[in-house]
Amino acid sequence: MANVDSVTIRVFSLNCWGIRYLSKHCRQRYVMIGDMLCKEEHDIVLLQEVWSEKDYLFLKKKLVCSHPHSHYFKSGVIGSGLAIFSKHRIHDTFLYRYSLNGYPYMANHGDWFGGKAVGMAVLSIGSLTANVYVTHLHAEYCREKDSYLPHRVVQSWELQQFVRHTSAGADVVILGGDLNMHPEDLGNRLLRSYTGLRDSYVETSNFHGCENGLTLLGDNPFISKKELGSFEKGIRIDYILYKGSSKTDICCESMSTTKGSVPGHPFPYSDHEALTAELRLENVFANPIKVAELVDIVTEARTEVKVGLHCAERMRYTATRTAAMGLALLFLELVIAAVPWLALGAEQPFPRTSFYLLAVLCFVILLTTSLLYIFYTMEVKSLQGAEDQMRLALGGLQEKLRGFPLAQPHNAQRKSPEGEEPSAFDPEE
Amino acid sequence: MANVDSVTIRVFSLNCWGIRYLSKHCRQRYVMIGDMLCKEEHDIVLLQEVWSEKDYLFLKKKLVCSHPHSHYFKSGVIGSGLAIFSKHRIHDTFLYRYSLNGYPYMANHGDWFGGKAVGMAVLSIGSLTANVYVTHLHAEYCREKDSYLPHRVVQSWELQQFVRHTSAGADVVILGGDLNMHPEDLGNRLLRSYTGLRDSYVETSNFHGCENGLTLLGDNPFISKKELGSFEKGIRIDYILYKGSSKTDICCESMSTTKGSVPGHPFPYSDHEALTAELRLENVFANPIKVAELVDIVTEARTEVKVGLHCAERMRYTATRTAAMGLALLFLELVIAAVPWLALGAEQPFPRTSFYLLAVLCFVILLTTSLLYIFYTMEVKSLQGAEDQMRLALGGLQEKLRGFPLAQPHNAQRKSPEGEEPSAFDPEE
Repeated sequence: MANVDSVTIRVFSLNCWGIRYLSKHCRQRYVMIGDMLCKEEHDIVLLQEVWSEKDYLFLKKKLVCSHPHSHYFKSGVIGSGLAIFSKHRIHDTFLYRYSLNGYPYMANHGDWFGGKAVGMAVLSIGSLTANVYVTHLHAEYCREKDSYLPHRVVQSWELQQFVRHTSAGADVVILGGDLNMHPEDLGNRLLRSYTGLRDSYVETSNFHGCENGLTLLGDNPFISKKELGSFEKGIRIDYILYKGSSKTDICCESMSTTKGSVPGHPFPYSDHEALTAELRLENVFANPIKVAELVDIVTEARTEVKVGLHCAERMRYTATRTAAMGLALLFLELVIAAVPWLALGAEQPFPRTSFYLLAVLCFVILLTTSLLYIFYTMEVKSLQGAEDQMRLALGGLQEKLRGFPLAQPHNAQRKSPEGEEPSAFDPEE
Repeated sequence: MANVDSVTIRVFSLNCWGIRYLSKHCRQRYVMIGDMLCKEEHDIVLLQEVWSEKDYLFLKKKLVCSHPHSHYFKSGVIGSGLAIFSKHRIHDTFLYRYSLNGYPYMANHGDWFGGKAVGMAVLSIGSLTANVYVTHLHAEYCREKDSYLPHRVVQSWELQQFVRHTSAGADVVILGGDLNMHPEDLGNRLLRSYTGLRDSYVETSNFHGCENGLTLLGDNPFISKKELGSFEKGIRIDYILYKGSSKTDICCESMSTTKGSVPGHPFPYSDHEALTAELRLENVFANPIKVAELVDIVTEARTEVKVGLHCAERMRYTATRTAAMGLALLFLELVIAAVPWLALGAEQPFPRTSFYLLAVLCFVILLTTSLLYIFYTMEVKSLQGAEDQMRLALGGLQEKLRGFPLAQPHNAQRKSPEGEEPSAFDPEE
């Protein structure tokens, strides 16, 4: 067992883009990833988008010597796509499925079917207990008009709740994955501020890799520049975050990313770049949460969730109206059916074709709107639930602010950096 | 703030059976419940089956003086039905939705639509931090042939995981709710053994209430004796469980249940009896988990989950076969459609009615089987996920057993109390 004072661990994270038969060179890329992991022998390997269990089993077999401990997190229709490999013993695992994750009918985006979640593994590193989290949040398909923003904010909210509530007994907390958010996006700030997690890329003074730490490159052969919009060079959406505890200090000694194509191979490991962080674990440390800043972020998140809630309620209303149209059609159908009975004896031919077509249309409308109604109701509930919790959290934070008038001047809470009206902050209602 | 050495708190739990318009005397019963809670002033009130938010708001208004802090947990289509009222400040809440919860097409059982979950609230009781959990597991509709058993076992598994992982920072843990399990049912043993939670009814020497602590009485006017099967007098399925921590000891000073009809009213509060436990919080205590016993219980739970998995896979296979039949019908449909084109000129009348009927049938079959296939795939994934985690847990437990040969004799793990073959216990595969 290593001595705590001198432990350095290497953490790896990669979104593997492993959709069998759809992702390009999927099989070869897994072979390349396996070879590299086997050779590099990172302490902890966090993988996302390992959609097929067969690919996980392939890696597991390949890494049996370098990483004897592993876990694959199952969830949703396809799976969560999350996997962890470790040199250190995994004692326990737990999976939290996000309550919101896109729409089933947006099949081209496919996120709903993936059952996005956050997986947790409890590891022993020497005498230390490390809680390691791996996650993959809902993708951002259009930054200008991002209809999934409330969903991603709720996912960030649930992620911070999960990390916070499950890590009380941990000496070290490490979170890696594809957050699908730019460094200063709301969800990212919410996560970091609330949990006190720190960003390896920002913290280290020793970085090697893509310019600005980008992890989704414009030059990557597997992505189209169009996807990146105005960020032609690329964006940074993959992270390794960490924090210590009252018992353990932690700092990032160095960090690196892959830089496109792999030497000796014609293409890179994935459509994302891989991250490696070298973390040194040391002694006592306390990570103060900046309360005033947190209040602003939670308020912003709550507004975003409210917007999503409004939108979901509107969609549910539209579904209800369409259902009413379906019912009107059903009524018309009944009228048509009644024609032969009313016009007894008259030689009126029964409009058979229209009748059946109308019946099918009616059935399809009523079925679809019912399913949509149920779906939007679930969305509304989840959004309302998150909004309630955020309101409660704001109440608590405001009290903390009041409790520490010296550390946080009283007028700090009046002067919001976004220039918002203080009235926007109403935790009690 | 009270001194820790002398704090006594009263915890209340009731399944309110609050289905608006369907549950008998719903409105009046809520008034009765509200009056009683207002008068009794329990420290913590845990309610289940508060299906309508309006009823929660009614209670909230009524209890604003006696219980200024409250939270309603939203989830699923209808809601989780879970609510908490507290005299002590609620700092934080978190909701975990169970990954399995019955079937959407069993609408008569309705559990699926409820979005069953476990809600957590973090309370401050004096200087102590209390994690309070409220939950409601899937109902047991037929004890002899309980097709929901794997679902309930997975729910128990997730419940113990959630409690264990989120309560590391808590001084006191309290769980109340309708577990829908008899005291010695597998899920109950799994929950108690793993978390170290203790049953108020078993622990207290001062019990007042129904014989044997029953909470679902045969005499209750709202239930039919048929539901209780061979347990004519009733069953005990509602619980208040608790545990302390390294900092706090906890014991149950007294416990009581309501006994049918409320004095001065013609009917009881609900179809369940209400529980009240008086808990005294004291000093240092360690609750040892009996490892050998736990191994047996987890092995049994894993077997149950495997049975469910087998069943879900079979159902998915049936759905696939039915879909194949739908495809065959579609082919027939195409053949019929081709008839007029092939028999050009021949005066064959086109079988219009059969054609449309077949089309509708075909559509309905393909749609239903697709939805069922997706649903069963999700069920299979969840069951597999739980099974994986249980295997991992068994590995860890076996190692613990090996590590403490004196505390737990080595042959303890060979002698299973159920008389099972030791080969049934294969944590490594």
